[in-house]
Amino acid sequence: MNTPYKRLDKDQAAVLLVDHQTGLLSLVRDIDPDKFKNNVLALADLASYFKLPTILTTSFEDGPNGPLVPELKQQFPDAPYIARPGQINAWDNEDFVAAVKATGRKQLIIAGVVTEVCVAFPALSALEAGFDVFVVTDASGTFNEITRDSAWARMSASGAQLMTWFGLACELHRDWRNDVEGLGTLFSNHIPDYRNLINSYTSLTAGK
Amino acid sequence: MNTPYKRLDKDQAAVLLVDHQTGLLSLVRDIDPDKFKNNVLALADLASYFKLPTILTTSFEDGPNGPLVPELKQQFPDAPYIARPGQINAWDNEDFVAAVKATGRKQLIIAGVVTEVCVAFPALSALEAGFDVFVVTDASGTFNEITRDSAWARMSASGAQLMTWFGLACELHRDWRNDVEGLGTLFSNHIPDYRNLINSYTSLTAGK
Amino acid sequence: MNTPYKRLDKDQAAVLLVDHQTGLLSLVRDIDPDKFKNNVLALADLASYFKLPTILTTSFEDGPNGPLVPELKQQFPDAPYIARPGQINAWDNEDFVAAVKATGRKQLIIAGVVTEVCVAFPALSALEAGFDVFVVTDASGTFNEITRDSAWARMSASGAQLMTWFGLACELHRDWRNDVEGLGTLFSNHIPDYRNLINSYTSLTAGK
Amino acid sequence: MNTPYKRLDKDQAAVLLVDHQTGLLSLVRDIDPDKFKNNVLALADLASYFKLPTILTTSFEDGPNGPLVPELKQQFPDAPYIARPGQINAWDNEDFVAAVKATGRKQLIIAGVVTEVCVAFPALSALEAGFDVFVVTDASGTFNEITRDSAWARMSASGAQLMTWFGLACELHRDWRNDVEGLGTLFSNHIPDYRNLINSYTSLTAGK
Amino acid sequence: MNTPYKRLDKDQAAVLLVDHQTGLLSLVRDIDPDKFKNNVLALADLASYFKLPTILTTSFEDGPNGPLVPELKQQFPDAPYIARPGQINAWDNEDFVAAVKATGRKQLIIAGVVTEVCVAFPALSALEAGFDVFVVTDASGTFNEITRDSAWARMSASGAQLMTWFGLACELHRDWRNDVEGLGTLFSNHIPDYRNLINSYTSLTAGK
Amino acid sequence: MNTPYKRLDKDQAAVLLVDHQTGLLSLVRDIDPDKFKNNVLALADLASYFKLPTILTTSFEDGPNGPLVPELKQQFPDAPYIARPGQINAWDNEDFVAAVKATGRKQLIIAGVVTEVCVAFPALSALEAGFDVFVVTDASGTFNEITRDSAWARMSASGAQLMTWFGLACELHRDWRNDVEGLGTLFSNHIPDYRNLINSYTSLTAGK
Amino acid sequence: MNTPYKRLDKDQAAVLLVDHQTGLLSLVRDIDPDKFKNNVLALADLASYFKLPTILTTSFEDGPNGPLVPELKQQFPDAPYIARPGQINAWDNEDFVAAVKATGRKQLIIAGVVTEVCVAFPALSALEAGFDVFVVTDASGTFNEITRDSAWARMSASGAQLMTWFGLACELHRDWRNDVEGLGTLFSNHIPDYRNLINSYTSLTAGK
Amino acid sequence: MNTPYKRLDKDQAAVLLVDHQTGLLSLVRDIDPDKFKNNVLALADLASYFKLPTILTTSFEDGPNGPLVPELKQQFPDAPYIARPGQINAWDNEDFVAAVKATGRKQLIIAGVVTEVCVAFPALSALEAGFDVFVVTDASGTFNEITRDSAWARMSASGAQLMTWFGLACELHRDWRNDVEGLGTLFSNHIPDYRNLINSYTSLTAGK
Repeated sequence: MNTPYKRLDKDQAAVLLVDHQTGLLSLVRDIDPDKFKNNVLALADLASYFKLPTILTTSFEDGPNGPLVPELKQQFPDAPYIARPGQINAWDNEDFVAAVKATGRKQLIIAGVVTEVCVAFPALSALEAGFDVFVVTDASGTFNEITRDSAWARMSASGAQLMTWFGLACELHRDWRNDVEGLGTLFSNHIPDYRNLINSYTSLTAGK
Repeated sequence: MNTPYKRLDKDQAAVLLVDHQTGLLSLVRDIDPDKFKNNVLALADLASYFKLPTILTTSFEDGPNGPLVPELKQQFPDAPYIARPGQINAWDNEDFVAAVKATGRKQLIIAGVVTEVCVAFPALSALEAGFDVFVVTDASGTFNEITRDSAWARMSASGAQLMTWFGLACELHRDWRNDVEGLGTLFSNHIPDYRNLINSYTSLTAGK
Repeated sequence: MNTPYKRLDKDQAAVLLVDHQTGLLSLVRDIDPDKFKNNVLALADLASYFKLPTILTTSFEDGPNGPLVPELKQQFPDAPYIARPGQINAWDNEDFVAAVKATGRKQLIIAGVVTEVCVAFPALSALEAGFDVFVVTDASGTFNEITRDSAWARMSASGAQLMTWFGLACELHRDWRNDVEGLGTLFSNHIPDYRNLINSYTSLTAGK
Repeated sequence: MNTPYKRLDKDQAAVLLVDHQTGLLSLVRDIDPDKFKNNVLALADLASYFKLPTILTTSFEDGPNGPLVPELKQQFPDAPYIARPGQINAWDNEDFVAAVKATGRKQLIIAGVVTEVCVAFPALSALEAGFDVFVVTDASGTFNEITRDSAWARMSASGAQLMTWFGLACELHRDWRNDVEGLGTLFSNHIPDYRNLINSYTSLTAGK
Repeated sequence: MNTPYKRLDKDQAAVLLVDHQTGLLSLVRDIDPDKFKNNVLALADLASYFKLPTILTTSFEDGPNGPLVPELKQQFPDAPYIARPGQINAWDNEDFVAAVKATGRKQLIIAGVVTEVCVAFPALSALEAGFDVFVVTDASGTFNEITRDSAWARMSASGAQLMTWFGLACELHRDWRNDVEGLGTLFSNHIPDYRNLINSYTSLTAGK
Repeated sequence: MNTPYKRLDKDQAAVLLVDHQTGLLSLVRDIDPDKFKNNVLALADLASYFKLPTILTTSFEDGPNGPLVPELKQQFPDAPYIARPGQINAWDNEDFVAAVKATGRKQLIIAGVVTEVCVAFPALSALEAGFDVFVVTDASGTFNEITRDSAWARMSASGAQLMTWFGLACELHRDWRNDVEGLGTLFSNHIPDYRNLINSYTSLTAGK
Repeated sequence: MNTPYKRLDKDQAAVLLVDHQTGLLSLVRDIDPDKFKNNVLALADLASYFKLPTILTTSFEDGPNGPLVPELKQQFPDAPYIARPGQINAWDNEDFVAAVKATGRKQLIIAGVVTEVCVAFPALSALEAGFDVFVVTDASGTFNEITRDSAWARMSASGAQLMTWFGLACELHRDWRNDVEGLGTLFSNHIPDYRNLINSYTSLTAGK
Repeated sequence: MNTPYKRLDKDQAAVLLVDHQTGLLSLVRDIDPDKFKNNVLALADLASYFKLPTILTTSFEDGPNGPLVPELKQQFPDAPYIARPGQINAWDNEDFVAAVKATGRKQLIIAGVVTEVCVAFPALSALEAGFDVFVVTDASGTFNEITRDSAWARMSASGAQLMTWFGLACELHRDWRNDVEGLGTLFSNHIPDYRNLINSYTSLTAGK
């Protein structure tokens, strides 16, 4: 009996960025801030690179939670932007669900802060609504490892696919021949080790 | 094929606090005592805040296990309090099960010490009895990480939802507009980072 | 739809101790040796305390793997002792399976060294043969955490219950009133924190 | 209801080594390089020892990813060697799938760099195609533990068996009597603790 | 040749609390926030308990660094409070140094955020000025462990005494008979394990 | 310029065991309880084995701190036993200092709970008084690693020698030929890995 | 007796960047690559900001060590650049020492890869030559923590000051009033938590 | 006041390998066995490469401690080999000290098992005797990190230089031009990351 492979397809996928706000980010302590910032921006870059429909949403921007991190706002100026008036689960917001459905996509890539709430709640709702859900674990953060591991267990048991941004990019790209330079640049900008490999390589082959 | 989302509902949930006793707490070494104390009190506060029926139970209070931590006793003076005469699994105690059933609730939020016994046993029994079970992993403690991870795997494989107190509060509250100040106070009292956000915010907006 | 609780019953359970040999123990590096020794001896003590049929088996005692640790041999002088001539999976040894079946028990508690081989292989075979399997994770050891976590995932996915010795003892005992002193002694001998609780308690109540 | 044990059989198994390239190896940070090198070479040695059909594949050898590590190339001079022109998922390469099918084996042992891409993608594809998949977790590496744990969860949920090289060797060998010296040499070469046991043993028994 | 013991004396010691501000606290990641909050408040409580002259200072309260945490302001309403206009090293501020000298104390207990700057700079300046310096390591926080360890090495090499709040309290108190209840209350309020001991003890001896 | 080696001499050394009490032990969280118990008993055994004068002292036995652990009381029935009426630093107690001086020894081996108080205070006082001080770091425990590391730095900077029980035993014994069996038994009883080596060795050479 | 405070002075300090080469960076495993890259670039930015004389040096650029990371080359186009023909200790290279002396600075800030060689050797040589040495521990990397801790101990014992880039910046700047915006920008660019504080603050005060 | 740099000189240094025996190695748990084996063999290789006088010594080879690891015996067939009849501190053995003195070297590089005994005792004795001592921390192992850190603190406080094998090799070699290939081979054989760099480099430049 075969297991169907829920494989990302750049024509089927959309990205949901939930509550990456300047105040809430200070709650994230299960991942180092340098790395977390890099992962979120890498996810944003791959969304742009693959031209995936992207939806931004926030919770209580005017209060202590703070505004959406400016980099995301700038990178997706035309994306649907749902500043939720109060719903904690973004899926409880009709505008958000409408925006998701308007994309026509069935594969939802979700990242957010904090993992067990802003990611898990819409992930579970979307699964119930029949979507395939891909959680970007390394672009989602929360208080500590106990909380993270509990949230992962809950989402995974419900059928969510746990992935990280690099795997997403590779699964969406399928074949390096589609665009070597574009994907290479994405990796070089967000993986120091990969950048070093490219720089060493370029240095040695420059004069060839 | 959709996955039903087992979502907490404040009108369907009850809280079971199992064996948070002064002696047994010295056995808890998979979580720091400062954090653990905070998590247990946060869970108690959210139970009060959402007016969830709450049941207290202990094992051998007169012996080395020690009395229930006084803070819990004081916070729930009218809650059913079952000092079990010997049953290790609280579900084996008829009074306890009767108290649970008397709440009329089908969603059981369980925390206790130690995780693999005082939490896992009633959790597995309650699942078998047809209840939905939500384990509060960060308000439950045990000897070490091997024990904890084994207990989580056993409970999760049986269908228990692994959650932490912050996720519980958010899932129960649904919408900030139901009461901004109340939920904010709960968070401020139990999440230092959130308290700092609120204090910075208040300081800046006080004079507006 | 309810989840049946696979609950240990002292009249249904047997203990299989696989390859706790003096040489092989030097391979165990996922758990500290002081703690591991204590856990194995605690498991042995609970097997004796609950009078569970216990089966000992070893692999290549004459070679570098070394003899069974003497404490286990001494504690179970009359237990079936299968020195396997070569089979790595104890379940491939007919005498071992015969000894298991001779107990008439359907719940198999398994511990051994190393986890992914000496525990996992007979555990998977026993599950296939229709037994309920309870793996004692803290009395089983292996090379490192990657190996352990992989082995746990494989066994858990096949239906094995992951438990630790303290949970086993509690699930088997059911009710403190069955024998307070016996269980208390078991805990006092193998849990320093519990011993301290008892000593503090005794000191204070001695003169009452 | 019994659980079928997916047990490795040396006449049914093939080994797929995916993208162990000198450049990509610098990306591996979830396992120490000394240990990782040893694990990969141990896997290669067991593939040779059990005469398992082995397939090598690489991605972009001419670029920064670097060539296949020379040790693997030397050890399997006659193995199918598919230098993929661009496909990230090796299973998207027809030559690779043809080579796999040409082995006639239904049990695929997969290791590679990085885990969530070079291992997970062909693992998920092979499961979908009806193969049994055994992931060698300790001969596969990736960026960090968050990535690894996510990849393991995804593969395990799809039915892949998570194993490590030592467990593979033991499950394939079945019985020490098939060849004590051969298996002992494999262990001695790749497990320092085992080598020490053998050397102590030999020293003491040399003069007997 | 004897080593003089730099021993704290409650008539010689003063406490300097440097830059525990609501914004800066989000930078602290070398210690868990629950524990850190507790340690800072414990230090404040012991300063009050031993009636040690205490000096508060902040850096840029009006900007992103945020205000002093309100609890400290409330606890020391009459303490010198130096809101520094720009000096990073508090010792560069004349008012601060004047306030220190006005205490007439030669033993300075220093804690602050972040360790390598707000603590280390005035500590090194005070040592140079001839004071004895006692750094409260667990009520001081910074970005990560590399930073902390470097700062500790620098301060320790210059002669600062590294201590934690509990040790401070004990060294200042000298003898339990000076006030059993007062010190016990301090410990009960800030050490959950100690509180449990007291509660167990009280429970058992209450009826005597 | 040579460095004098402060070397332990069994005719110059005495052992001070400070406040290993059943209540206080629950505060120790920088070392696992199984290992800590073993280390303390190993230290006691080596004190007996080398016939070192040993002094026991406790703080507030009648209160929550609890009695001295019974094993130590039993092992040293004739040792000076100073139940301090209130002094936190044992060296402030005249009887304790008198007992130390009565031994006529100049090398003081100190262990206790908690490290930064019960060990560090008398260690610093003894150094000031001209004794050589050897702190048994693995038989001393405290709240967490920050506290421990701070205490070690303070004591080490004052000239205390940081050692562990195994090193103490080896430095005191000097030469295996003084008594192979006695030292071997001490190690076998407290080092599982050593016990395994001995058991493997004995098994192989028994029949020679 | 007072301890002189070796305090950085922007008119006395120079920066030495040793062997941050694209190949050598793959050896660094004691610090996460995202964080390490950030720290090195932060150090470079502060060198530029404070207009500190900066010297670049490399070892074997043409071979496997790879070229200097391009970002550093671009940031310091006019800095002395000593591509050492073979000397491992940069201080053994006359041009390097001449460049250092040409700065006329007596305070040397050193960072490099790997810590125990490229940093420690010139640090120890410079100390011997009478310079004050400030090691930037978080912009220096090496194989693992054992190596790092050993190197720190060796350098610290010889009188090197262990610091991190943030402390350097603060000690050099002395007073925020010298330039609030400049220092704030440096921190915002390299400390995500600080950037969030600034963004929250700006958002709230923008409309004031 | 300048700090003299105790710098290794290949004409002044000798290597002492103390008690790397097959049994004792099972006690080493502060470093992974794969890495430890590699480090010890790397140290042996550098001793050979730099033609440093090397002395081997063991303790009780005939008993449970086991024989010297065969690789070391084979690599130094003509080295002085002192099988100590009982002295725990190798420096207490006259033959050993005589062998050391016979080398005429003043810089002693010491590694062994276990760190706090077999390394620390002769290190402290040699320092007292006027030698410079360089401890190879990563080729020395012991029970756990508490023991290791205590031993390092004791040795470092007495003036021993803490180093690791790679730093030793670099400090001894001084200049790559003395022999690029020899040192490169040493590194390639013992540092997988360096080997990968070389292989990538060779692959790219092979055809030039």
